Amino acid sequence: MPEQPYDVITMGRIGVDLYPLRTGVPLARVDTFGKFLGGSPSNVAVAAARLGRRTAVVTRTGEDPFGDYLREQLREFGVDARWVSPVAAYPTPVTFCEVFPPDDFPLYFYRQPKAPDLEIHASELDLEAVRAARVFWMTGTGLCAEPSRTATLAALRARDRSGITVFDLDWRPMFWPPGEANEADAPARYREALAHATVAVGNLDECEIATGEREPYAAARALIEAGVELAVVKQGPAGVLAVHRDGTVADVPPLPVDVVNGLGAGDAFGGALCHGLLSGWDLARTMRYANAAGAIVAARLACSSAMPFPHEVEAALAEGAVTAHGERA
Amino acid sequence: MPEQPYDVITMGRIGVDLYPLRTGVPLARVDTFGKFLGGSPSNVAVAAARLGRRTAVVTRTGEDPFGDYLREQLREFGVDARWVSPVAAYPTPVTFCEVFPPDDFPLYFYRQPKAPDLEIHASELDLEAVRAARVFWMTGTGLCAEPSRTATLAALRARDRSGITVFDLDWRPMFWPPGEANEADAPARYREALAHATVAVGNLDECEIATGEREPYAAARALIEAGVELAVVKQGPAGVLAVHRDGTVADVPPLPVDVVNGLGAGDAFGGALCHGLLSGWDLARTMRYANAAGAIVAARLACSSAMPFPHEVEAALAEGAVTAHGERA
Repeated sequence: MPEQPYDVITMGRIGVDLYPLRTGVPLARVDTFGKFLGGSPSNVAVAAARLGRRTAVVTRTGEDPFGDYLREQLREFGVDARWVSPVAAYPTPVTFCEVFPPDDFPLYFYRQPKAPDLEIHASELDLEAVRAARVFWMTGTGLCAEPSRTATLAALRARDRSGITVFDLDWRPMFWPPGEANEADAPARYREALAHATVAVGNLDECEIATGEREPYAAARALIEAGVELAVVKQGPAGVLAVHRDGTVADVPPLPVDVVNGLGAGDAFGGALCHGLLSGWDLARTMRYANAAGAIVAARLACSSAMPFPHEVEAALAEGAVTAHGERA
Repeated sequence: MPEQPYDVITMGRIGVDLYPLRTGVPLARVDTFGKFLGGSPSNVAVAAARLGRRTAVVTRTGEDPFGDYLREQLREFGVDARWVSPVAAYPTPVTFCEVFPPDDFPLYFYRQPKAPDLEIHASELDLEAVRAARVFWMTGTGLCAEPSRTATLAALRARDRSGITVFDLDWRPMFWPPGEANEADAPARYREALAHATVAVGNLDECEIATGEREPYAAARALIEAGVELAVVKQGPAGVLAVHRDGTVADVPPLPVDVVNGLGAGDAFGGALCHGLLSGWDLARTMRYANAAGAIVAARLACSSAMPFPHEVEAALAEGAVTAHGERA
């Protein structure tokens, strides 16, 4: 009997996030840190799992205790870790952040000389499972270095635009190694991936790298011209603009929220976007739902462990705001 | 008026240590970490400062919040940080540890692609201050890569065997980059440095790299033949053997202690060794004192902040043991 397809498979970064246990304190003065599963596409999988979806991630860790931790965490969050293999040559990445609400969350990455998640080889992919997944989610960072770039494109080709294939534009210039596939190559890499995707998601900076446009409607139209059916442009305090190739538009304001930590909100949005698209909701409901999921995580210090359950998103939507008592015990 | 010389100048590693706030727990299950100043020679300076000595360190950090933290911490510990400059190209190293008492304390270093403390340039050294210091302390790791190796040897030559020049053999093979100055070169590098030192300190593995000998007396004699006046061989549970060129020998058993975290004990030993040598104590008293300082830190979870004050060392010596209530509030 063939295995049921996954609802969502994500591919790309994973690492350990070390977050200050107090907010508003410079890193130099943070005494204690909490340890969390991190890495955007891995968090997207966690977010989708929290919303009841069957998910798996394709990524790699170091061959070390932090790698063991990440596999354990994925399993505890209900995310299949079968395609999370260790790389002996590199340590599991760690990322520190500073938390200065409402809008300043600097990150300090330790992914040198190379992150294990960039050592994903095309030959090791389960392309049948990738092809069968109802949603496949990849990110721009997966295109920054080999063999990850070739593997990511192989996965996109295997999809052959079946189902929902999401390209999270995720522009992190510091990850693009100088020389090899450098920043100047990024727009061409992005265009190549866009031709295989059915949905593109990004903020204005990311849209500009992918399309050269940073006016929201122009960027959305350019993403559709580049190949996708649905373009989702995140504009922070100005809300989210979603434009479908069929002419449907949803321009959704943000949910009022007292931000504690903005990190992870985009991943919650992404997991909820997958859930909405899989549920067949109309575009406006999907965007409102994803916005609410993002706002809930923004009101909490943690990221992966803060991803909301459906009743929490519904409550926020019913209330029209995320209340300050958003942190779960 | 010429500035007073420092009692102790150390040169070499610095970084942020992230220690589990619970012991006996695998890294994968540690939820929260405390942040501490780390790096062996920097901890030696802290230990000497706690014992009342005027100290400074020569090292470099990243140009980042953790670098700011390390400079602040040094100042709070009473260590002069004037020669701790930032390096823009590399992040401040971080080190995670696992704490499995009594004798298993694995370390996980994030010092890639290069630690800022290996970017110490000879041209930037204050050789007059290095020459004038009553004790100068360097480590084997400083010899593992350029420009640190040339700078360390320049400092040793500036000393010209004046005062007390300590070579902490500190053998960390993972820090020696393959190709450039690789592990095979290490013994020759160690011999070159030994010719400029007056004191050598190391455990049996380190003595073997430096001299080819790992029987304690043979190793001590080989270190003296290589140039030093005093050889200090640390044998863990078998205590410490110190042999002076003039024939004096001190073979001192360890102080009974319930080990909480063995990391940092060697640095406490080193700071106390400096203090004893500067105090002109006889060899046996110096070794007993350094042993006691090391045992006190082994009984505490922290390292830098756990370095003992003189009354604490005297109390341990008077009691003949370190009691379990060694942790300072």
